Amino acid sequence: MKETLALIAQASSIQASKGSVATYIPELAKADPEAFGLAVTECDGTQYLSGNCEFRFTLQSISKVVTLALALEERGKDNVFSAVGNSPTADPFNSIMRLEMDAPHRPHNPLINSGAIVVVSLLPEEGREGKIEAILDMARDLMANGDIKVNDRVYRSEKNTSDRNRSLAYFLRSVGSLKGDIEDILDVYFRQCSMEVNAKDLSILGATFACDGLNPITGKQVISPQTARIVRAIMTTCGMYDGSGEFAVNVGIPAKSGVGGGIMASVPGRMGIGVVSPPLDQRGNSVAGLAALAAISEQLHCRVL
Amino acid sequence: MKETLALIAQASSIQASKGSVATYIPELAKADPEAFGLAVTECDGTQYLSGNCEFRFTLQSISKVVTLALALEERGKDNVFSAVGNSPTADPFNSIMRLEMDAPHRPHNPLINSGAIVVVSLLPEEGREGKIEAILDMARDLMANGDIKVNDRVYRSEKNTSDRNRSLAYFLRSVGSLKGDIEDILDVYFRQCSMEVNAKDLSILGATFACDGLNPITGKQVISPQTARIVRAIMTTCGMYDGSGEFAVNVGIPAKSGVGGGIMASVPGRMGIGVVSPPLDQRGNSVAGLAALAAISEQLHCRVL
Amino acid sequence: MKETLALIAQASSIQASKGSVATYIPELAKADPEAFGLAVTECDGTQYLSGNCEFRFTLQSISKVVTLALALEERGKDNVFSAVGNSPTADPFNSIMRLEMDAPHRPHNPLINSGAIVVVSLLPEEGREGKIEAILDMARDLMANGDIKVNDRVYRSEKNTSDRNRSLAYFLRSVGSLKGDIEDILDVYFRQCSMEVNAKDLSILGATFACDGLNPITGKQVISPQTARIVRAIMTTCGMYDGSGEFAVNVGIPAKSGVGGGIMASVPGRMGIGVVSPPLDQRGNSVAGLAALAAISEQLHCRVL
Amino acid sequence: MKETLALIAQASSIQASKGSVATYIPELAKADPEAFGLAVTECDGTQYLSGNCEFRFTLQSISKVVTLALALEERGKDNVFSAVGNSPTADPFNSIMRLEMDAPHRPHNPLINSGAIVVVSLLPEEGREGKIEAILDMARDLMANGDIKVNDRVYRSEKNTSDRNRSLAYFLRSVGSLKGDIEDILDVYFRQCSMEVNAKDLSILGATFACDGLNPITGKQVISPQTARIVRAIMTTCGMYDGSGEFAVNVGIPAKSGVGGGIMASVPGRMGIGVVSPPLDQRGNSVAGLAALAAISEQLHCRVL
Repeated sequence: MKETLALIAQASSIQASKGSVATYIPELAKADPEAFGLAVTECDGTQYLSGNCEFRFTLQSISKVVTLALALEERGKDNVFSAVGNSPTADPFNSIMRLEMDAPHRPHNPLINSGAIVVVSLLPEEGREGKIEAILDMARDLMANGDIKVNDRVYRSEKNTSDRNRSLAYFLRSVGSLKGDIEDILDVYFRQCSMEVNAKDLSILGATFACDGLNPITGKQVISPQTARIVRAIMTTCGMYDGSGEFAVNVGIPAKSGVGGGIMASVPGRMGIGVVSPPLDQRGNSVAGLAALAAISEQLHCRVL
Repeated sequence: MKETLALIAQASSIQASKGSVATYIPELAKADPEAFGLAVTECDGTQYLSGNCEFRFTLQSISKVVTLALALEERGKDNVFSAVGNSPTADPFNSIMRLEMDAPHRPHNPLINSGAIVVVSLLPEEGREGKIEAILDMARDLMANGDIKVNDRVYRSEKNTSDRNRSLAYFLRSVGSLKGDIEDILDVYFRQCSMEVNAKDLSILGATFACDGLNPITGKQVISPQTARIVRAIMTTCGMYDGSGEFAVNVGIPAKSGVGGGIMASVPGRMGIGVVSPPLDQRGNSVAGLAALAAISEQLHCRVL
Repeated sequence: MKETLALIAQASSIQASKGSVATYIPELAKADPEAFGLAVTECDGTQYLSGNCEFRFTLQSISKVVTLALALEERGKDNVFSAVGNSPTADPFNSIMRLEMDAPHRPHNPLINSGAIVVVSLLPEEGREGKIEAILDMARDLMANGDIKVNDRVYRSEKNTSDRNRSLAYFLRSVGSLKGDIEDILDVYFRQCSMEVNAKDLSILGATFACDGLNPITGKQVISPQTARIVRAIMTTCGMYDGSGEFAVNVGIPAKSGVGGGIMASVPGRMGIGVVSPPLDQRGNSVAGLAALAAISEQLHCRVL
Repeated sequence: MKETLALIAQASSIQASKGSVATYIPELAKADPEAFGLAVTECDGTQYLSGNCEFRFTLQSISKVVTLALALEERGKDNVFSAVGNSPTADPFNSIMRLEMDAPHRPHNPLINSGAIVVVSLLPEEGREGKIEAILDMARDLMANGDIKVNDRVYRSEKNTSDRNRSLAYFLRSVGSLKGDIEDILDVYFRQCSMEVNAKDLSILGATFACDGLNPITGKQVISPQTARIVRAIMTTCGMYDGSGEFAVNVGIPAKSGVGGGIMASVPGRMGIGVVSPPLDQRGNSVAGLAALAAISEQLHCRVL
């Protein structure tokens, strides 16, 4: 196992040169394109680390599943899915036109930006500090790492390049699909995207979802089995931006990517996988991360579809 | 197992009264709304039948996966997925606007109507008779039933109510995404939709996909393991029309439905499930079929997501 | 006046080299790119001819106003505008997506292809022969030319390259916005597009609309003043494809263009203008024709907006 | 003339009961639904007033032509029309989806909200105070009324119900179609919409555009003839929201409406018309105002199309 992963890490990290580090947020553009980390956490707590598993990066869109899990726990499945849909869509993650075209004018799913912004607004905590603290607590519990915190420079960089997300939020409120103070909601959203982790943290996140909500490192039931299953299902159909369909065909494992270069995958009942490599393909998915997961799916027989 | 399925059949068949039999094709409107059949075929060949497993209905959209499997075998994955995408979409199955809006102007996936029409056009056989014979042969092999044939009245009824599909086909050819004689292609498409089966046939279809292409009744390797996996992945993200996301959340099994009232599901490595009940919900999925699959997923621990 | 027009003809005909002859219908691609004709018919019957006013070309989209006038006369304004809208649109002339996106699913106006096809279907005459004869009669009356007929080669060429129009027609019927035999309707449509005229004919067409329906050459009241005004209004907002807004700004006269290279303009109460030069700009409007009309608008003070 | 107008005023003011006062901005909802004023200013300076021409209302979208005229004068036609298009569109005035769908991602014309916001951003004056002062000066010059100012309560009400406009502005900036400080630009936009006038002011505004930029009351050439013509052309194709096509057919005069209940019309070379009655139809046009303009067009032979 250990050697297999080491070989996979070696072979896939080379692929990074085919991608480009995200540039639309200035701070992300500074990421080391050569960094590569791969970690596996099995449901019995065994861990395998390969490459640079100390390399820190921000969760970006992977944070959407943390907040989704929190909202499902706190508000219940019905409330969440009456505010956002659960349908995959062929549109890019920051698309706005569907919100106008389709009635009801609500986001198609919680993993596109508009949906993730609505999910933040559903959290029952008061104010921006209350909400982000609850998200950080959930992230720390899911990843068995009490030190997880927001990278302040990335957060401020996000906030300064947020025209599109601001447009989405104001549109949602104009059609009655979002309630609350938009600056508060966006502030929480930018901070959740800026939570900093390493590949090992990601693998534990995947493992907790894989083990029906039981964190295999701490032994704590962090979320209900139902919440874990919902998150895995949504990741399967919507987790890889508009590359979700292709990922289902080629890899066949529930997963979520972020433009920080991380991908978290969750093999139900078996393991969580965390991989990071900043260079992205055109859809915003880590090139080397995709390669590593395809190899793991095949060589470790992890495909679930 | 037998009793569990019988109880599930009983409980879910009652749900049929909440749906309505498809009316947009006159011949479908004649289907018996009370008919209900449920069959399971395991990968070792064991079968469980419940309700009316002799009730015959037409495959409709379920036929799309038969032809997709055939095209993948005959033309290869790369050729197929350069002609149609593999992305789920939030649009209805007969939507045309995406074909104009999005470049390249090709169907988003092979399970919406436009995509299925393109898949038919990819078959290498000459003429309409050649193509439909190849599809029938594939269907017979996949379902271990040499008697499967086209229901002529349904086929003619489809052909007489085909304005939308004709519009899709002409549009596709006008943008260069479809080649060939449109009347030939549509004729094959209407005939494949009109292939008549029963719940047991469907369960074997699901089992053959579940067993990586090996038909557990005949022992024949009908399609390659890769083709079986691709079909399962596409069914997971796109199989239940615009209810695919919700089905992934609630049931979590690769499946494909048809407006004839059938649903075929495929639990990798374990079993195929065939269920039929003509009344449909607003998205075109069998109401009682959905209920049966949700119960099976939970009670038989079949969820894969 | 005569000299002014001659100078305008000379200066604008040079512009033709900036455009390209239409190629999407093979027969149109054969048009002489150097041909240029300019004719003016005043409301008192005076005519001025410049360039090659014997050069024959097909009306193409200009025929849409002939059939619109006929439908308005035969079916009345209310019937026509309950079947098609009267709103300009920013979409290209052959666009289909609006028909799906917007309810009611009817064409936005009678001068885009989908709308023109619906207008043909509204004609009360029986069968394709009846309808095209009525259109030819109307065309002959409006243009004071009993010899106008269909160019058979162009008609057959249109019919062989008609995938998009066929797609539009089938879509319209699938949503209930078009009734009747589609092959009949399209056949009439292709024939009306293929009616052959010269620049002088066009100028009389424009003059009859300008003179509130009274043909200044024959003295016959061909259509009612109301029909003439409606046609002029629709031409103003929708007559130049998606270049209608720019034409209103730059020229400011009701006009209709066709991909055969003709443009007909109508200065209310004063004159009709016919100009032809086959090379088109990207929107499908004759480049030299646009230049001639801009010059006429300014130098003859013809602007009405 | 005077009696004709009085009769028209009487007959059309009754129509107001078929409409509803705008409610989406709270302050507008307080408008007197019975108020009706009708004014005509001819190009020789003669004025006819009917009904309540002292009734004050806010310009709302009519202000868009004031700022457009200013931007054309200060920045030139080419600069303005490279930042916004000049094409009519079938979309509602606050639509966003076209901005994402169509490349280049710029507003289709300066009279929809997104376009008007861009036009504000083009003004060369520094800061919000500089811009609004320039707009007020232009408004005062065009309407021969040095007392025109912003209604502060309406302005603040607009600013508090501005989610959609804010969404449009952030979207435009995110795609590079808007530059500058968004809060500044929107503040100017809300203030220009809140400029308060009466029917007489409106009629002078229309007359100045009708007289090629020469204000017939003050004798001052406020804007160039070219700017006046461009504004009239844009009003013809886009002035009445998505009712522009129907207005061209039924009335046939360049005009611009606002949700404050005003409509300004401009008969080239002859007169300007101002009419106000707050109840609106579903498209946002004054019901009684439309009736008055239709009657004037017919009875005073003002139709230009």
